Amino acid sequence: MEKKAFRTIWESEVDPGAVCVIDQTRLPHRLVIAELRSPGDFERAIAGMQVRGAGLIGATAAYGMRAAALAAPDSGFDSFVGEAAARLIATRPTAKNLEWAVLRVAGAMAVETRPQRKREAALEEARRVTSFDAQCSRSIGLHGLPLIEALSRSRGGQPVRVLTHCNAGALAFVERGTATAPIYEAHDRGLALHVWVDETRPRNQGASLTSWELGSYGVPHNLIVDNAGGHLMQRGMVDMVIVGADRVARNGDAANKIGTYLKALAARDTGLPFYVALPSSTIDWDIGDGVAQIPIEERDPGEVEYVEGYLDEGLPGAGAPGGPSGGGAAQGGAGRVARVRICPRGTSARNFGFDVTPARLITGLITERGICAASEEGLLSLFPERRTRQGEAQGAAAKGGER
Amino acid sequence: MEKKAFRTIWESEVDPGAVCVIDQTRLPHRLVIAELRSPGDFERAIAGMQVRGAGLIGATAAYGMRAAALAAPDSGFDSFVGEAAARLIATRPTAKNLEWAVLRVAGAMAVETRPQRKREAALEEARRVTSFDAQCSRSIGLHGLPLIEALSRSRGGQPVRVLTHCNAGALAFVERGTATAPIYEAHDRGLALHVWVDETRPRNQGASLTSWELGSYGVPHNLIVDNAGGHLMQRGMVDMVIVGADRVARNGDAANKIGTYLKALAARDTGLPFYVALPSSTIDWDIGDGVAQIPIEERDPGEVEYVEGYLDEGLPGAGAPGGPSGGGAAQGGAGRVARVRICPRGTSARNFGFDVTPARLITGLITERGICAASEEGLLSLFPERRTRQGEAQGAAAKGGER
Repeated sequence: MEKKAFRTIWESEVDPGAVCVIDQTRLPHRLVIAELRSPGDFERAIAGMQVRGAGLIGATAAYGMRAAALAAPDSGFDSFVGEAAARLIATRPTAKNLEWAVLRVAGAMAVETRPQRKREAALEEARRVTSFDAQCSRSIGLHGLPLIEALSRSRGGQPVRVLTHCNAGALAFVERGTATAPIYEAHDRGLALHVWVDETRPRNQGASLTSWELGSYGVPHNLIVDNAGGHLMQRGMVDMVIVGADRVARNGDAANKIGTYLKALAARDTGLPFYVALPSSTIDWDIGDGVAQIPIEERDPGEVEYVEGYLDEGLPGAGAPGGPSGGGAAQGGAGRVARVRICPRGTSARNFGFDVTPARLITGLITERGICAASEEGLLSLFPERRTRQGEAQGAAAKGGER
Repeated sequence: MEKKAFRTIWESEVDPGAVCVIDQTRLPHRLVIAELRSPGDFERAIAGMQVRGAGLIGATAAYGMRAAALAAPDSGFDSFVGEAAARLIATRPTAKNLEWAVLRVAGAMAVETRPQRKREAALEEARRVTSFDAQCSRSIGLHGLPLIEALSRSRGGQPVRVLTHCNAGALAFVERGTATAPIYEAHDRGLALHVWVDETRPRNQGASLTSWELGSYGVPHNLIVDNAGGHLMQRGMVDMVIVGADRVARNGDAANKIGTYLKALAARDTGLPFYVALPSSTIDWDIGDGVAQIPIEERDPGEVEYVEGYLDEGLPGAGAPGGPSGGGAAQGGAGRVARVRICPRGTSARNFGFDVTPARLITGLITERGICAASEEGLLSLFPERRTRQGEAQGAAAKGGER
């Protein structure tokens, strides 16, 4: 199968003020490119999940700040951009990269004084944010690769069976992803792999996005319901779990798509390794207790009550069980996308977007600087520049406590 | 809200050879009654999940044996009925009640010699199986009630928050259900309750059936995705978990709808009680190790790749989050039921129907004779008549092992 790598965000070649993204609400049934120009375009794209995933939200927000800079009048520039920044950060409360990217671009503008130089600085910084994200994915892949190589050896070359939840793939970042980066790295080197793809209700990012991109890259996989992972682990059909994260606290607790915690529990109960892959921009150094402190977004209950999909009018020819999956290119042809209601008209739902996996359930964190324990000590061993600053802050806090 | 109790299976008043069931594949969007007459009608109703749930499968299979007796020729009666019994048992490999009910009716026919007496005995036994199931549900409700009463007291009368998975409700049995029986008993007595209803992919029995019947009974509830339960338990939004079972092994391991194991893990991790409610007909006394030995049905992957629901052509007015759910009566009006594909055309799924929750994760088993520990000793304390017979069998097995 032909391998198709892709980027999720790029500057328009025809309109220097515009940025192009893959509209992920249309996948896997249509491949639609959306052009974003105004600050409102960027806010709506993030809030409405045309773009989603930790890294891609960050890169989009960085270009959103640049759009705000372009739209801002010379007089009142800073307050215009400041308000746009606050609106961007508010679009998705759990994603750490969003705030990180907005503040990076804001910081690059702050050191300039003239509006035109601020606009140029915003573009340069948005490019750096995007480039850093792509570099992180490549590094995470290389650091995670030995884990898969070791499992491949211990299985005598039989496919290494990886379970993943949601989409921490190429579509969630600028390219290659985080949870998928070691998978693509291993696949590029010819190692045999098979991926169990959690469908990831309610928005089915696994079914619609991870299946699509694994198919595009030619990685064998099967779609499963979110309920199935525990059974597969219990029956010896999984070798490791790798997921992404939306925010990782200083103590190693990891917020990720709702349901991740349940898979971590099953991995622990069955003795399987459970890894979280993330760029350092996902770490929230200010939160010391992720389970207690990371805010969890509650979304529209309609996302639970309705399921969106492609309306085949005939009865489907269901795929044969057990076979590796075929290509995942976007399709044209007959039919259309529709939403169906899965519950009685009077029933209402609650829709929690994320959960927090306690650090004690995480085997390791795969970052762009290497793999570490999911703990403050582990993170500081890779990011020692955070030690001093926080050490001083903790010292000050401790002093305050002694009074 | 008006309370509507219902039965799921009854003898036709117009056709003495026919049995009526609620066609559960049409719920919650339509309330359709299906009439079953030929042995093939009963087999298809079970295999195609027009009827589902441990107790209702048993009652349907019992009447299916009676249909076989009616259809059997006087000469060759036994072999005709024997073949029908084998086909009925093969329809759903995990459900213990199915085999139990078929063998009960077969046994009642075996003690008669004349075909006409066998047919009468089959009807009498099918009625006894059905009546026993209804009595079990009532008893399970009364035995489970004190658990909810105690939680209600400790919460000062605030709603007791129960999480359940799949449908072990009135629709899964002849009436009142198992997991839901203590809920209905408490609701009838005026205790405040709120039920978190797992949607239960891939067939969405929670979204379509549990929501519908809780709405009919007037029990407040919210639909959630299967991924959400761990988060709710971690954040203190659940007081107890009650589920049903499709087969419980002698050691207390419980097979139930896929995903149950994950909820049991979360309950253990957060210190919450996790109960399994079942009639004794669900116990498989011959299986000593449920995790290792209970067969797990693998079903059509199309159930994962496609989601069925009601096609509202307009955009939905999504329900407000947080409010208790309204009525769940079957609806008429515009629109139609349709299936949408949630994954790319080339992706194939795997579809495992059940998982096994190890006894060590189960706080207690709620049976028609009371609550016991999930262990061989616990089960034998309630069903001492099983002790002797199995003791002898074990003694014989041990002797065999000494050779």
